[in-house]
Order: sequence, then structure tokens, then C-alpha cells
Amino acid sequence: MTTVQTSVYEPLTEPKAVALAVRLGLFRDGAPLACREIGDGNLNLVFHIVDQETKQGVIIKQALPYAKVVGESWPLTLKRAVIESNALRTFASYVPQYVPKVYYSDESLAITVMEDLSRLQIARKGLIEGKTYPLLSQHIDEFVAKTAFYTSDFGMNQQEKKKLAQSFVNPELCKITEDLVFTDPFFDHETNNFEDELRPDVEALWRDDRLHLEAAKLKRKFLTEADVLLHGDLHTGSIFASDDETKVIDPEFAFYGPIGFDLGQFFANLLLNALSRPELERQPLFDHINRTWDVFASVFSNLWRTESVETYAATPGLLEDVLRHAFIDAVGFAGCEVIRRTIGLAHVADLDGIEQKEVRLAAKRHALRLGRRLIVERAELTGTDGFRRLFAETER
Amino acid sequence: MTTVQTSVYEPLTEPKAVALAVRLGLFRDGAPLACREIGDGNLNLVFHIVDQETKQGVIIKQALPYAKVVGESWPLTLKRAVIESNALRTFASYVPQYVPKVYYSDESLAITVMEDLSRLQIARKGLIEGKTYPLLSQHIDEFVAKTAFYTSDFGMNQQEKKKLAQSFVNPELCKITEDLVFTDPFFDHETNNFEDELRPDVEALWRDDRLHLEAAKLKRKFLTEADVLLHGDLHTGSIFASDDETKVIDPEFAFYGPIGFDLGQFFANLLLNALSRPELERQPLFDHINRTWDVFASVFSNLWRTESVETYAATPGLLEDVLRHAFIDAVGFAGCEVIRRTIGLAHVADLDGIEQKEVRLAAKRHALRLGRRLIVERAELTGTDGFRRLFAETER
Repeated sequence: MTTVQTSVYEPLTEPKAVALAVRLGLFRDGAPLACREIGDGNLNLVFHIVDQETKQGVIIKQALPYAKVVGESWPLTLKRAVIESNALRTFASYVPQYVPKVYYSDESLAITVMEDLSRLQIARKGLIEGKTYPLLSQHIDEFVAKTAFYTSDFGMNQQEKKKLAQSFVNPELCKITEDLVFTDPFFDHETNNFEDELRPDVEALWRDDRLHLEAAKLKRKFLTEADVLLHGDLHTGSIFASDDETKVIDPEFAFYGPIGFDLGQFFANLLLNALSRPELERQPLFDHINRTWDVFASVFSNLWRTESVETYAATPGLLEDVLRHAFIDAVGFAGCEVIRRTIGLAHVADLDGIEQKEVRLAAKRHALRLGRRLIVERAELTGTDGFRRLFAETER
Repeated sequence: MTTVQTSVYEPLTEPKAVALAVRLGLFRDGAPLACREIGDGNLNLVFHIVDQETKQGVIIKQALPYAKVVGESWPLTLKRAVIESNALRTFASYVPQYVPKVYYSDESLAITVMEDLSRLQIARKGLIEGKTYPLLSQHIDEFVAKTAFYTSDFGMNQQEKKKLAQSFVNPELCKITEDLVFTDPFFDHETNNFEDELRPDVEALWRDDRLHLEAAKLKRKFLTEADVLLHGDLHTGSIFASDDETKVIDPEFAFYGPIGFDLGQFFANLLLNALSRPELERQPLFDHINRTWDVFASVFSNLWRTESVETYAATPGLLEDVLRHAFIDAVGFAGCEVIRRTIGLAHVADLDGIEQKEVRLAAKRHALRLGRRLIVERAELTGTDGFRRLFAETER
């Protein structure tokens, strides 16, 4: 009788993480290994194992069966580790230069073993320190454009696409976005979190029928449009960067969704950083925003013209229609992200880290006005210069 | 050691079909059973088994591993039998009165055993004979409105909906629609099938960039919008009817798609029948079209107001927006169906059965003009009266 031995989930310890790395042959024999758990303990364990002599390392990431945010704790599916490793592998088949290499994954242990990126810095942290990362937007938008095109009905066999989408159905993680990005901040919900001084501004949003209607339409797009494989959480905290290298990490929210969503999250997090800066230091962010769209549109259009599998791809006006709606949606999604990062459950250090209270409150009020207009006026914004215009118009 | 015995696919014969019905206990002991294979042999075997004394019967439907259309034969997944029986069961949980009862299904044999509906007539056949089926549109649209609402993000838990959609991923059958409804008729494709006399009209469609752009947008909706569980092939040949009863059959094309698709197919097949009738006999079809939308909108709106699970459901304007887009999409989908049933691979007896050649050709030219304008002007059609107006304007 044959018994198939399946591993049973248990959280790794540092010695067990080292043993796994050795068993996988990721280090030479007898290498002096050091291991440190560097996760924030809220969602995942992250072990950084380094050969003390060669300084070469690997990362072992293990999902925890719960999420902790602002003291709350709730159960969260371990399947997100499979989604994450499958998404990294799928992305790597199109843009290996922009994701960490995956060496190994184990579904039952919820483990992904991958490339050590400690030579790079989390982009949010660097941007807060005033760095500009000149290639950031070019890299991210080549990442977004290529993964979007090749996983869409224009870039891949349409029957294979449906099976790929089926493998990325991700109800639990999508629910987090549906609630925390698209719903709770727009209503008086217990997950919201903001300074008392902002209450009048926040209550105005909660009473705003026009805003509700447009946010509802964007949520419906998120719920129903199975367009392309998205990263699903492409904020600047999911990006490692240096002046010449960029890597996208943490795609556990990956699913098939509307093409403008990742772009919108990225736009929003550039705006959130701009909101945290003195006026004279904002230009690099707006340059990134402009380049973001230019690179996306150019790469996507080139692929469309040269590699599309869809009979209608040559139809005059279709590419323009797809791009126009991607842009409109991205602007709206950016507005939702700006608002929820200001008054929702999960904030960003860009805004919360502003030390002077009045400056911080002013930036957050600015964020709420900007986010609202991005949502409500998204169809009228013609081109990325519109971001700058709305940013200026909502400043006070 | 335990061996799990799984059945291996083989086509049923009449004696085997009877043996299965007996084994399932669907007839009293010793009942004198008669069995006849009544399928058209193109896609499925359909056995009609009847107790000769009580006259009670059952249907055993078995998918064949290929499809035959107009002499062509190609392999076709047996999984469609599982999709069909699962769709019938899902629909029955909302509108048992409008679908046949499923008694049994066997995935590996690709079999569904279900209620005998031979007391009813296929609606297309009856409509061609001049019947009016006074309750047809009311029943079909209660069916469409309830199944659409309860399988949407407004009518069911949004995480359960994603899992349900995952179980109805249906690449092979969707491809048939993508090709035969949305693509081939609009291009010079070998699957097209039309009288030589229509060639100038057809070639005008093939050169029509504006039509291509709008058909492409509709195809993209079909490919990406995972909105509600659709029947997927809701023409009048998929409906059994009498004056007081209506049953929807054959949902093997079921999948999660745009809310307007089933409505559009139904509109189109009412229009195709109207196109085949003398002017004075068309009124019942237009009455059905008007009632179709009225019943759909009213049933869907009532469910929305009383049973919605979505926080935004109470937002002023959202229901109206959802209904407006459902209608616009339905009009466009109807246009695609009218065109493809006229010049594509699979025709309808309504038009092909017109005996006088000049009358038939005139009706088909009318169909092409009507279909084109439904697609191109779908956003301008205000209400179902628009169908009648376009019908008249495209008559000659």
C-alpha cells in the first residue's frame, strides 16, 4: 500500500527555515548561514537567510492563517500563498526582470521561497526619504502593460485565458479590497480610522450621493470585469526599487480584474507621496505619473499592433477605446485609493508620517478633496496633466 | 483494498437508457416502457422513455463527444453535460417553475435525466405556426430577472458568487458564441452561410468599420464581464411553451457573463420571427418585446429594493444605471444575433422557412439592416418602442 505523505501546515521557526533552504540545495555545503525573521508579523512570516561568507541570501515567505491590522485579528485563507507564487511565476513568464525569482513553493505549508531583494529598498520608504527613483514609473508600467496585455483576450488564447482566470479566483483577498477600498471609507463603518478633526470632511463624503454612485460603479467594475491578471495591491509598499532596478512583490491579491486597477493604485500612491511633500519637491511625482501613462499606453499599443490574437484588433478605434476606458477607470480607482489611505483602515506612512499636525491635517483634507474629484470627474480628465490640475485645484 | 468504480463514457443505446431509468426507480415495477431516441444527433442523444399505460415519461439526455453542424464535425467537451445539469439545478433554486426537474446526472457518462416536457411545444416551432403564447415573455423575463438578480453581486454573497462563477467557467462553449455570434459573420469567414443574392449586402457589413468597432465592444463585454449566471443560448428553440406554461431547456452554454446577453438573444429571436411574418401578424411579437423589458425591469427592481446584499444598493441612481446598461447591451447583443442567424453558420427556421425566394431575401436584407442599426445605435434606443421604430425604418 502506498501512502502519500502530505505536509501539514505549521508556522516555520528560524531553524526550520534554514533546514528547508539547505534541503532545497539553495546554499553550498557547509555554508555558514544566518537567519532572521523580518516580517511584520501581521500577515506573513518572512525569513531572510544569508550565507555569511558570500553574502548571498534567499527569502522564505510563509502565510499565516490570520491577518492582524491595527490590533484586530481575523482568519485569512492560506491559499493566498499559492496565488502569490503562481502570480509571480505567471508574471515572470512575461517580465522576469520585474519580479523576484521563485525557487520553490509548497501549497500545504503556504510557503514561497524566492530571491533575496535586500539590495533594494521599499519604494514607499525611499520616496518618503525624498528619493526619486528615475526609472520607477518606466519599469512599473512596462510591468503593468506587458502582464495586462499578455493575460488579456488580446494577448493570449481566449480559452486558455478563461482557465487562467479560473485558477486566480481569489474571493477572500478580493473581499478585503471590496470592503476596505470601495465601501467602508464611504460609509460610517467601524473599520474607518481618522483624526477627530477630519470628521466634518469625512461626514460630508458619507452624505455625498454623487460620490456614492460613482464609487459604486467602480466597485461593480472591480467585482465583475475579468479583463486581465492584476497584481491587485500595487502600491509603493509592494515595490522594491533602486536607481536602476525595480521589483514588484507580494501579489497575493492577484485576480482577474479591470485593466485600470493596478495603474490606479500606482497613480494614487504617487499622489499620496506628492501630498506629503512641500510644493517644490512634488515635480518628480508628477513626472512619474505622466511617464506611467505614456509608457503603459506605448508598450500596450505596440504589443496590440504586433502580437494581438483577436480578429478585431485591427478595427479602427478599438485600441483607443480600450485605452480610454483603462485610463478613466484608473483615475477613478486612484481616487478610491487616495480616500481609503486617508480615512480607512490601512493608512500610508507618507501622510501619517507628517509630524506637524496642522500640515498633516491639511494634507489629508487635500487628499479627500482630490480623491473625490478623481472619482466623480474621472471621465473628464483628459490625460495625466489632469492629475496635476486637480491636485492644484483641490489644494485649498 | 477499496476500488472506486467509475463509469467510462460510452453512448447509450435505447435498451441501456431504459435500464438506467429502471435502475433509478423512475417507473413503477413492471411498467411497460417504450423508448425512442428523439435527438437530432448533432450534439446530443435524447431518449424519451414512456410508461405506455400511465403515459408518464422521462428524458435522458446524453452529450456526444462531438458537434455536427451543416455537415461539419468537430470534437466538443463532454463537460457541457455537467454545466447543463448544474445550471438547471441552480436555476431551479430560484425559478423551479421555468425549468425541467433534474432527477439524476452522471458526469462521466455526460448524462442528465430530467422531466419529460412533451406536453409542450418548442416555442420557435409554435411561433412559426403563428401561435402567440400570451405568457411567453412574462415567464421568460421572470426567469431572466430572477436568475440574473440572485446570481449577481447584488443578490448573493459576493464571495460565494465568485466560487459559483468559477464552477461555470465554460471555455469551449463560449468559444462557439465568440466565433459564431460575435466574429465570423462580420468577416469573410468560411463558416458563413448565405444565399449568393445577399453577397453585396454581406460584403457591405464586412467593410463597415463603424459596425466592426461596436461589435468588437460587445464581444469584449461577452469575454470579460462576469456579471450574472446566464443561460447563454436563450433563443426560442431553447424554450418549451404552451399557452400557460413555459420551460427553459438546454443551458449547456451557461457561464457568468453580461446581464444583457440572455435578454438580447430573446429579443433577437422574437424579432427574427417578426421578420418572417406578414406585417399585420407582427403585433404579438412587439407586444412580447415590450413586455419582456417591462417584466424584467420590474422584477429585477423589486428584488433589488427588497433583497439586495450590496451596501451601495440604496444609492440613488445605481439601479437605474445597471438597468440602462443592461438594456443598451441587450439591444446590441440582439443585433449580433439577428445578423448571425441570417448569414452565419446556424440559421433559424423562421427566416429560412420562408418559401417564396424574393420574400425570403427581402426579409433577410431587412434583418441585416435591422441588426446593424441595433448594434450601432444601441445607446440611442430609448425603450422597447425603439425596436419597433428601427424595424419599420429598416424595412426597405
